[in-house]
Amino acid sequence: MIKRIGKKTIVLTKKPRIVATSSIVGSREGKGGLARYFHKIIEDDKMCQQTYEKAERSMLTEAIDDASKALEKLDEKLDIVIGGDLLNQNITTSFAAREMQLPLIGVYSACATMVESLGVTAIMVDGGYINNGCATAISHFSSSERQYRFPLEQGTQRPPYSQWTVTGAGACIVGKTGSYPKITKITFGEVVDYGIKDVNNMGSAMAPAAMETLVNFFEDTGTTPRDYDLIVTGDLGILGSHILVDLMKDRGFPFNNNHKDCGAMIYEGMKNIYQGGSGAGCVASVFSSYFYQNLVEKKIGKMLLVATGALLSTTSSQQGESIPCIAHLIEIEC
Amino acid sequence: MIKRIGKKTIVLTKKPRIVATSSIVGSREGKGGLARYFHKIIEDDKMCQQTYEKAERSMLTEAIDDASKALEKLDEKLDIVIGGDLLNQNITTSFAAREMQLPLIGVYSACATMVESLGVTAIMVDGGYINNGCATAISHFSSSERQYRFPLEQGTQRPPYSQWTVTGAGACIVGKTGSYPKITKITFGEVVDYGIKDVNNMGSAMAPAAMETLVNFFEDTGTTPRDYDLIVTGDLGILGSHILVDLMKDRGFPFNNNHKDCGAMIYEGMKNIYQGGSGAGCVASVFSSYFYQNLVEKKIGKMLLVATGALLSTTSSQQGESIPCIAHLIEIEC
Repeated sequence: MIKRIGKKTIVLTKKPRIVATSSIVGSREGKGGLARYFHKIIEDDKMCQQTYEKAERSMLTEAIDDASKALEKLDEKLDIVIGGDLLNQNITTSFAAREMQLPLIGVYSACATMVESLGVTAIMVDGGYINNGCATAISHFSSSERQYRFPLEQGTQRPPYSQWTVTGAGACIVGKTGSYPKITKITFGEVVDYGIKDVNNMGSAMAPAAMETLVNFFEDTGTTPRDYDLIVTGDLGILGSHILVDLMKDRGFPFNNNHKDCGAMIYEGMKNIYQGGSGAGCVASVFSSYFYQNLVEKKIGKMLLVATGALLSTTSSQQGESIPCIAHLIEIEC
Repeated sequence: MIKRIGKKTIVLTKKPRIVATSSIVGSREGKGGLARYFHKIIEDDKMCQQTYEKAERSMLTEAIDDASKALEKLDEKLDIVIGGDLLNQNITTSFAAREMQLPLIGVYSACATMVESLGVTAIMVDGGYINNGCATAISHFSSSERQYRFPLEQGTQRPPYSQWTVTGAGACIVGKTGSYPKITKITFGEVVDYGIKDVNNMGSAMAPAAMETLVNFFEDTGTTPRDYDLIVTGDLGILGSHILVDLMKDRGFPFNNNHKDCGAMIYEGMKNIYQGGSGAGCVASVFSSYFYQNLVEKKIGKMLLVATGALLSTTSSQQGESIPCIAHLIEIEC
C-alpha cells in the first residue's frame, strides 16, 4: 500500500487574494437567517427554464458573470474558471462554461468542491500561472433530488437526520489585486470511510473526513483550534457538527466554541429544517456571502474553511458500498 | 458575456518531469498493435470482482500502485493523486483513493481528463507545492456502456461511426527527479459546441475542441505544427481525426503528416473496430505506454498531447442538448 511521509499542508507565500465574490440562492435559502448576506435570491427555482438542470446552469452562469463584473471594475480580466457541481458528468459547470470564452478546469469532490476549486485556483495565482481565476461550485435541490433520491412529485418522506440540498451557487475570484482576504494555506483531503451506508445520514459519514483534514492541518502547522477566530465546516449539518466537536476533542484538538457549519446555519430560524443544508452550493453560497463579508469587514481575522464531501453515487450505494468522504481545507486571513 | 484577453498558454519554467508511468488495459486492447507497449494486460475484464465498477476500481488502484513503486525505486514519495474517470460522481477514482493515505484532487473533463490531471499536477510540481504527484485517468468498456448507453446483455447494434470505450488506465508520476521527459507548456481548453447531438458520433463533436485549443496554443507560442515531431490527440478516432486534419488546414495550421490519435491507434490491425477507441482511459493508457516509451528512448523529441472530451451526460442528451466538448493540451519534450 502507498504511504506518504511528510506534510500535507501547502503554504502559499504570495498570499493570493479573494478579490470578489458572488452568491445566488433559491427562495427557501432566502428565508433563512443569512438572507441579507446573499447577493441574489431567486424566487422561481426554475428561473423561467424548462428543466431544473437548465435553471441550475443559469444560476451558475449568473454567479460567474456577477463575480466577473466585480473584477472588471478593478480593471482586471478573468483567465480561467475552476469548478464543479453534483450532477452526473459535471454538466452544470460544463454547460455554463460553454457560454464563456474561458478555459475550464472541471473538478469534483461532491460537497467539498468549492474548497477544492479555491485551492487549485489559489495555487495557480500564487505560482504566477494566471492573474485571476474564478472558483465556483453549485447545487440545486430539485435536480439533486431527482438524480440522487426520488422525483419531487413522489412526495417521499425524509428521515429526521437528513439534510436539504441547498439551491445555491458561489463564485470567488482569486487574484493578486488589493488588500482583500487572502488564502494562506491549503490542505487537500484524503478519502476517509468509516463504513456508514445510510445515504440520508451524510453528516455522520462526513464528520470523520473533516476531522482527518483538520488534524493533518494542525499537526503540519503546529497550531490548534485556539489559533483561529473561526473554524467553519461546509455541510456537516447539526448532527454532523456535534459529531465533529466530539471527534476533535477525542483527537486532542478541542474546538474553543469557535466552530460553525454552513449547513447548520443556512436555514437557521426556519421550520422543518431537519439537520440543515448540504450540497456543493451550501458552503459555496454561505462562504461567498456571509463569511466573505465578515472577512472584508475584519470581523473575522483568521479562519479555516473546511468543506466536506460524500463521494458516493447511486450505483455505489445500490452495490452495497459504504460512503467514502473527503474534506479540503483552506486557511484565510482578512 | 465574459471575454478573456491575452494568452491562454501556461509556460512551466522548471520543466517538471514525467518520472514514471504505468498502463493497464483490457483483453480487447491487448490484441491491438500497441499490445507490447502496455505494462499490463488483464484477461478477465471483471478482474475477479462482482461488478464491472469494482473491476475498474481495481485496475486504477493497481495502476497507481505500479507507478508509485517505480517512484519508490528512485527514493521518492508520492504526495498527491490527481485524476478522474467517466462513472457518475467520479466513483472509480474516489473509491480507489480510499485505499491510499494520500490527498486527492478529483478532476473531470470526460475523455480529456488525463491531460487535465497532468496539467494540474505539473503546475503543482513546477510551483514547488508538491514533490511528486500522480496524474491518472481510467475508463472501462462495460461500466461505461451500462451507464451511458445500454446494458451489454442487450446486444445493441452500433453505428459504423461509433467508437469503443477503452478498458484502460494510465498513471503518470510527475516530479522533479532525473532527466525524464518534461512537461513544458499547458493550454487548458475552452468549452466548444458545434451543435452535434448524436451521442454515437463523438469524434465529430470533439474535433472542433481540439482545433480551438491547438490554434490557441500555436497563436500564443508563435509556433506551427511543423515545430513538432508529433501532434497526438486523445480519442477523436478515425473519422474525428480526418475532420481535425481538415479543420487545421482551414485555420491555417496544416499538420505536416505528423498527427496521430490514440483512439485510432489502439485497435489497429483488429477487425470491427468502427472508428477506434474512446474513453478517458484511451489517451491515458496509450500515452503512459507507447508515447512515453518513445519519449524516453528519444525517438520523439517534442510532441503535443491534446486530449479531447465530450462533456455530455445521459440527462443532457435526453433533454435534447447538443454535446459541448473540451480539449486540454500539454507540450512534452524528451
